[in-house]
Amino acid sequence: MEVVQVLHMNGGVGGTSYASNSLVQEKVISIAKPITEEAMTKLFCSTSPTKVAIADLGCSSGPNTLLVASELIKVVNKICDKLGSQLPEFQVFLNDLPGNDFNTIFRSLASFQKILRKQLGSASGAAGQCFFTGVPGSFYGRLFPRNSVHLFHSSYSLQWLSQVPDGLESNKGNIFMASTSPPCVLTAYYEQFQRDFSLFLKCRSEELVAEGRMVLTFLGRKSQDPSSKECCYIWELLATALNNMVSEGLIEEEKVNCFNIPQYTPSPAEIKSEVIKEGSFTIDHLEVSEVNWNAYQNGFKFNEAVDAFNDGGYNVANCMRAVAEPLLVSQFGEAIIDELFKRYREIVADRMSKEKTKFINVTVSLTKIG
Amino acid sequence: MEVVQVLHMNGGVGGTSYASNSLVQEKVISIAKPITEEAMTKLFCSTSPTKVAIADLGCSSGPNTLLVASELIKVVNKICDKLGSQLPEFQVFLNDLPGNDFNTIFRSLASFQKILRKQLGSASGAAGQCFFTGVPGSFYGRLFPRNSVHLFHSSYSLQWLSQVPDGLESNKGNIFMASTSPPCVLTAYYEQFQRDFSLFLKCRSEELVAEGRMVLTFLGRKSQDPSSKECCYIWELLATALNNMVSEGLIEEEKVNCFNIPQYTPSPAEIKSEVIKEGSFTIDHLEVSEVNWNAYQNGFKFNEAVDAFNDGGYNVANCMRAVAEPLLVSQFGEAIIDELFKRYREIVADRMSKEKTKFINVTVSLTKIG
Repeated sequence: MEVVQVLHMNGGVGGTSYASNSLVQEKVISIAKPITEEAMTKLFCSTSPTKVAIADLGCSSGPNTLLVASELIKVVNKICDKLGSQLPEFQVFLNDLPGNDFNTIFRSLASFQKILRKQLGSASGAAGQCFFTGVPGSFYGRLFPRNSVHLFHSSYSLQWLSQVPDGLESNKGNIFMASTSPPCVLTAYYEQFQRDFSLFLKCRSEELVAEGRMVLTFLGRKSQDPSSKECCYIWELLATALNNMVSEGLIEEEKVNCFNIPQYTPSPAEIKSEVIKEGSFTIDHLEVSEVNWNAYQNGFKFNEAVDAFNDGGYNVANCMRAVAEPLLVSQFGEAIIDELFKRYREIVADRMSKEKTKFINVTVSLTKIG
Repeated sequence: MEVVQVLHMNGGVGGTSYASNSLVQEKVISIAKPITEEAMTKLFCSTSPTKVAIADLGCSSGPNTLLVASELIKVVNKICDKLGSQLPEFQVFLNDLPGNDFNTIFRSLASFQKILRKQLGSASGAAGQCFFTGVPGSFYGRLFPRNSVHLFHSSYSLQWLSQVPDGLESNKGNIFMASTSPPCVLTAYYEQFQRDFSLFLKCRSEELVAEGRMVLTFLGRKSQDPSSKECCYIWELLATALNNMVSEGLIEEEKVNCFNIPQYTPSPAEIKSEVIKEGSFTIDHLEVSEVNWNAYQNGFKFNEAVDAFNDGGYNVANCMRAVAEPLLVSQFGEAIIDELFKRYREIVADRMSKEKTKFINVTVSLTKIG
């Protein structure tokens, strides 16, 4: 499986799209907002650029895609309002893999920009223009010219690896790291993460201007153990659904045995260690937070969503389907998907009724060393 | 009709797509190639940038989309080879209206870049990287930050107006300027062109770096008369097909009466006059060329295409369908399209068998005044 070709969130705006099932990711962005705003504020106050280039890496396609950029622009707007200075021009680069649904983003831009202009008010006249561009490609490689970007943002994307690690043959019955995975599997995953993240840091340091900044949020873990339940359980339950279907002859066992999710959910210590080793950045913040698997339990749109609140299995299954469907289709075909997520939904709902289920987020804020 | 929302070439790669029916446009680009290459050469030799930003305005989605950028990169590659200097980094901005099929472009980029790297050879190592981005939006407005682009290219796009001109009520039975159009219709079209092109020049002059360049090719005309056959005939024959269907009760007459193509095909003198009036650019070249309506008569792929060569009506109808279908669907609905282009194909084939039918191209090469 070529991850670069296959991996993308479900496109469009329909029932199984990422656009309709990304409340968890929205919540994660909002938790990191103070850190993101601080990075933008410090960057702007120390360098006062007349043009600010912002890039969101792994922007996906949905309501979250333009959320961060608009928040960052508002931060600068506020500062300029206070200082009575002119708003700079903004160039916003929206990056994701080539399979991402950029068309849907681009067709929503006109109405988004209208609203943004209204929110910015008078300051956004002739000066404060915002130019949006799409950048298809893997962030495990160069995406921008040297010294051209002021701030990189990435949320819930960097846990994705550039490829399924080599050497996972012994991970049979699992689709990710699990308590039953042999140690060599955990090592293979970790080493892939190290290679990928270190390359990521190198590329971004070349692309950032002097004093440029990055705010990165990973789906991660607190534990030292990469096979701990806090990061592996959500995939383990999907493996259970797949294995159920294997036992009923609906899926070939061999196909599950050689399927592995190209993800690594790092701990704060592992992130810190790579940043220090790579050497281009200082760490301003390194923080851990949590969100419930069921986004509607995170204090979102509660009033309108009492039913949704109650049907956590449905929400979580939809969220995971929006994220993982293209990977699963490439391995198992389209025919099994509806049945798979019907079963997954039931399994997840059962677990959620019996225990607290949370995603762990690790956010790191970095500044390029002069 | 909101032109910005509706206008785009047919997406995808199927039988009626622009990607499969854009040989005429490819030929036009190749005719202008010496002018484009000269502009790039002079720009590069006079300013020697370490990063070259190129923008193609109205890039569409198909084999032509990446053609110009790759030619320009090769020009610079050749110069650097000669001088023994390092290739600069390239940032290529592909612009079109938001309805354009950017997804298909983005998914073709990986294989395109592989081929390009091969063609560039060793010089394209660490230094000569090419970064591709998509920029959705109308070029009758700002698209880029100030002083950020080195060279603009646009081919067969600037004849499209930002809107259907106001005041065309009396153009009944026609869908474009025609010999039977009242003078006020011709004036309304011309004034819209003047407003649009002058705004275009102003926006681009803000976005270009000092000594930045533009090479623009219009679908145009030689004659002083904007309703002359050389530019209007192709639409007049489509009006004939529409009116035939009106007379058979398949289309409402009122719908044809209030439908007008948002295009103006300027003469070299009209282009020159706007450039001088606007005042930001000097003219390096202003040239007229011609291509046959039937692309296969332009010396393209002749051996493989003897049948296609003979069926000029089919080729021209497909070419015009790829360009105009979204506009026609927005006015008349999808149901009539197949029948309309069946009739158009017959009408066009009949005319082509009796007379020489050519598109007139006007290419202008401009340099920003210091």
